[in-house]
Amino acid sequence: MLFQVQMTVKLPTDMPSNQAAEIKAKEKAYSQELQHAGKWRHLWRVAGSYENVSVFDVEDNAELQEIISGLPLFPYMEINVKPLCRHPSSVHDGDA
Amino acid sequence: MLFQVQMTVKLPTDMPSNQAAEIKAKEKAYSQELQHAGKWRHLWRVAGSYENVSVFDVEDNAELQEIISGLPLFPYMEINVKPLCRHPSSVHDGDA
Amino acid sequence: MLFQVQMTVKLPTDMPSNQAAEIKAKEKAYSQELQHAGKWRHLWRVAGSYENVSVFDVEDNAELQEIISGLPLFPYMEINVKPLCRHPSSVHDGDA
Amino acid sequence: MLFQVQMTVKLPTDMPSNQAAEIKAKEKAYSQELQHAGKWRHLWRVAGSYENVSVFDVEDNAELQEIISGLPLFPYMEINVKPLCRHPSSVHDGDA
Amino acid sequence: MLFQVQMTVKLPTDMPSNQAAEIKAKEKAYSQELQHAGKWRHLWRVAGSYENVSVFDVEDNAELQEIISGLPLFPYMEINVKPLCRHPSSVHDGDA
Amino acid sequence: MLFQVQMTVKLPTDMPSNQAAEIKAKEKAYSQELQHAGKWRHLWRVAGSYENVSVFDVEDNAELQEIISGLPLFPYMEINVKPLCRHPSSVHDGDA
Amino acid sequence: MLFQVQMTVKLPTDMPSNQAAEIKAKEKAYSQELQHAGKWRHLWRVAGSYENVSVFDVEDNAELQEIISGLPLFPYMEINVKPLCRHPSSVHDGDA
Amino acid sequence: MLFQVQMTVKLPTDMPSNQAAEIKAKEKAYSQELQHAGKWRHLWRVAGSYENVSVFDVEDNAELQEIISGLPLFPYMEINVKPLCRHPSSVHDGDA
Amino acid sequence: MLFQVQMTVKLPTDMPSNQAAEIKAKEKAYSQELQHAGKWRHLWRVAGSYENVSVFDVEDNAELQEIISGLPLFPYMEINVKPLCRHPSSVHDGDA
Amino acid sequence: MLFQVQMTVKLPTDMPSNQAAEIKAKEKAYSQELQHAGKWRHLWRVAGSYENVSVFDVEDNAELQEIISGLPLFPYMEINVKPLCRHPSSVHDGDA
Repeated sequence: MLFQVQMTVKLPTDMPSNQAAEIKAKEKAYSQELQHAGKWRHLWRVAGSYENVSVFDVEDNAELQEIISGLPLFPYMEINVKPLCRHPSSVHDGDA
Repeated sequence: MLFQVQMTVKLPTDMPSNQAAEIKAKEKAYSQELQHAGKWRHLWRVAGSYENVSVFDVEDNAELQEIISGLPLFPYMEINVKPLCRHPSSVHDGDA
Repeated sequence: MLFQVQMTVKLPTDMPSNQAAEIKAKEKAYSQELQHAGKWRHLWRVAGSYENVSVFDVEDNAELQEIISGLPLFPYMEINVKPLCRHPSSVHDGDA
Repeated sequence: MLFQVQMTVKLPTDMPSNQAAEIKAKEKAYSQELQHAGKWRHLWRVAGSYENVSVFDVEDNAELQEIISGLPLFPYMEINVKPLCRHPSSVHDGDA
Repeated sequence: MLFQVQMTVKLPTDMPSNQAAEIKAKEKAYSQELQHAGKWRHLWRVAGSYENVSVFDVEDNAELQEIISGLPLFPYMEINVKPLCRHPSSVHDGDA
Repeated sequence: MLFQVQMTVKLPTDMPSNQAAEIKAKEKAYSQELQHAGKWRHLWRVAGSYENVSVFDVEDNAELQEIISGLPLFPYMEINVKPLCRHPSSVHDGDA
Repeated sequence: MLFQVQMTVKLPTDMPSNQAAEIKAKEKAYSQELQHAGKWRHLWRVAGSYENVSVFDVEDNAELQEIISGLPLFPYMEINVKPLCRHPSSVHDGDA
Repeated sequence: MLFQVQMTVKLPTDMPSNQAAEIKAKEKAYSQELQHAGKWRHLWRVAGSYENVSVFDVEDNAELQEIISGLPLFPYMEINVKPLCRHPSSVHDGDA
Repeated sequence: MLFQVQMTVKLPTDMPSNQAAEIKAKEKAYSQELQHAGKWRHLWRVAGSYENVSVFDVEDNAELQEIISGLPLFPYMEINVKPLCRHPSSVHDGDA
Repeated sequence: MLFQVQMTVKLPTDMPSNQAAEIKAKEKAYSQELQHAGKWRHLWRVAGSYENVSVFDVEDNAELQEIISGLPLFPYMEINVKPLCRHPSSVHDGDA
């Protein structure tokens, strides 16, 4: 089951740079593990912004919550979730 | 070059049903031609709404404008465009 | 899987009253069938407004889309969807 | 009398983790006591967010205010309240 | 139990003037009956606008819904409802 | 001359509790003095929120400014002011 | 007593041009009468828009309501009102 | 050339009171010098708020920028600018 | 003196196509005359939308108002105006 | 390929003035290098505000992201990006 998730990162401007680097490294590892596991199907950056757009493929709402709330950057993000389903005009096998 | 495009369809409630059906049929044909051509990479419906989410793969801004303004439903939609680029944490070849 | 759905009905003020009555009757029948089937778990009116709040229990996003887009009042509503999951502090068996 | 209450928790990102844990533990105990007492009828998490959705069953507006303002997390939340009443199409005994 | 209700009237600009006058007359009669009955405690106009501010004194949410949805101008209004309760600093007997 | 004033208090979450208590005590005294003087005609709490709704009876705009800007909590509030006048449908002597 | 009033005119695009011209002529006459009477102290157009900004000098809120609701364009405008008072830094006699 | 400028002052609540007093004194002197020079034509306070409304009379956009960015309170304000021009219905010589 | 102007065209969906074509042709001629005259310095389309972005070079606010209000599409547009001035970091002669 | 970028700078009011001056100097140097390289085609200040408006000429979305995220003031800005393309009514060679 697919969900589109927009995340806008807002790190406090007074966070020490090594602390910021550490959180971002954890975030990257966490994200890549989920991508390799097939749970995090797409990850794009919105050009010229602090915003990312992702598509998650999860079992249900509970798994989405578990994945999102486990993000190392979770306390520093604005998050917007949209449940997706197949569009009747789509010809792509993967759009579902 | 990728763009995320959200479209929310707002057909006038007094449009005759055969006219609405005709426009939707044209929209479907137009959309599927572009999907087969590789320009319209993803097309999802946002569950429980009038909204779609798409990812387009175009040469440049001008081609995006040409495709979007040619949509049969263009006069009846609210449209939001976001330019996408590769996220440094993405592991997917297609996320660019 | 649970979803909270807020619906605000906006019937055109120039719709003939018998047409409005007919759509509302269909909506009621459609809604009660889904309530009896266990798909539409709660339905409340927001006091002093045109807004309803519902909780749906569906298999997945696709079934939510099917149910919502089938509402007789669908063309006349503003709709907001939130995916729900169990809260770790809930003590109620049904809150999931 | 029922009220829907949406709460979005915004803990300061510089709050020490043990202080955050203590407040959350108090919040959980407070919440579960009210759930067992029948005052806090439903409690869900909105998947992928900091937001909760609840349904309270109280005597009147004053009791709602007493319960909400007593929440240990009250100073750290954005709160939205909607008064609910029975919808004429509801078939559920508890939707009132 | 008190509720503050803001109502902004938006009559269609093409409504015939005698029809508008008839609805407004019904609204006035309906409103004054409820004021005399003690249900509609205050009614003010916001100066320089189409907006009114009222305070209702009702048994519960259901009675509020019954009164508001019965307004002859109900289909032509934007409505905002806030549940009120006694403020601990109030010295006025009637502020509850 | 009447004004409706909505105030939402936003005390900094790191303000020492004795300082918060002192400001609130001053606010209460200030408010009650103005209520007894007939300037602050109504004061309600919006149930389940940080918001208050008041009705002030002042000589003119300048007196409103003097009273509001003198509130001990003035630096910590979001404030919304609406000038009120008599509604032609009101039957209450005091609604003006 | 001064009020700043912003008005944005939204004439229906299908209003016959002679009807639009007639309303605008009435509006101009009404406005100039009030300007000569000293009630409508300033009237500016916001460059490149449908918006006007005015300053009214009235006895009280009731007179403001009487003047604004009497505008021939009143049913076709969005209106925003702000009560003004003397700023302690102003050196202009007329700023009050 | 006239511009309407709305300014809302948001001093940090933890700024020492003598520092706040010093900035406000500088702001007053700066403002009065520009008023005497004919550049700052009107200055009003919006009653019951932190907001001011001004009308500036400047040579061009560049002079407006120079004046506004030189305000001692500039780093602590939200600012909204509207270019004004003569309204064809105005009878006042100074409204241009 | 430069102004940035964003215009979003909203033609009524029931306007006859020949009437729409006629207005657009007039708009194009009007626009190109002003571009050749040096008043309309830039004109871009925002890709995938109904929105244009322009830069105008005018004598003053009054000339901007005259040009914008003379647009054949003026009654069908949402318009946003921003006064521009030279940025101290600009190296381009024309950015003023 | 052109993009319009609006940037609003929000430096923390407690940032030491020498640190602010250093960041601004870096920003200026970075900006002027890109202007000389032909990547940053226009840079204007919005008069009376903290906002800038720019037009960038880049190869693709990825280059836009690289340039914007490299801005020394990037962590302190609100940024809005719009993809531009040639408007069919433009007569200027450079508007593309």
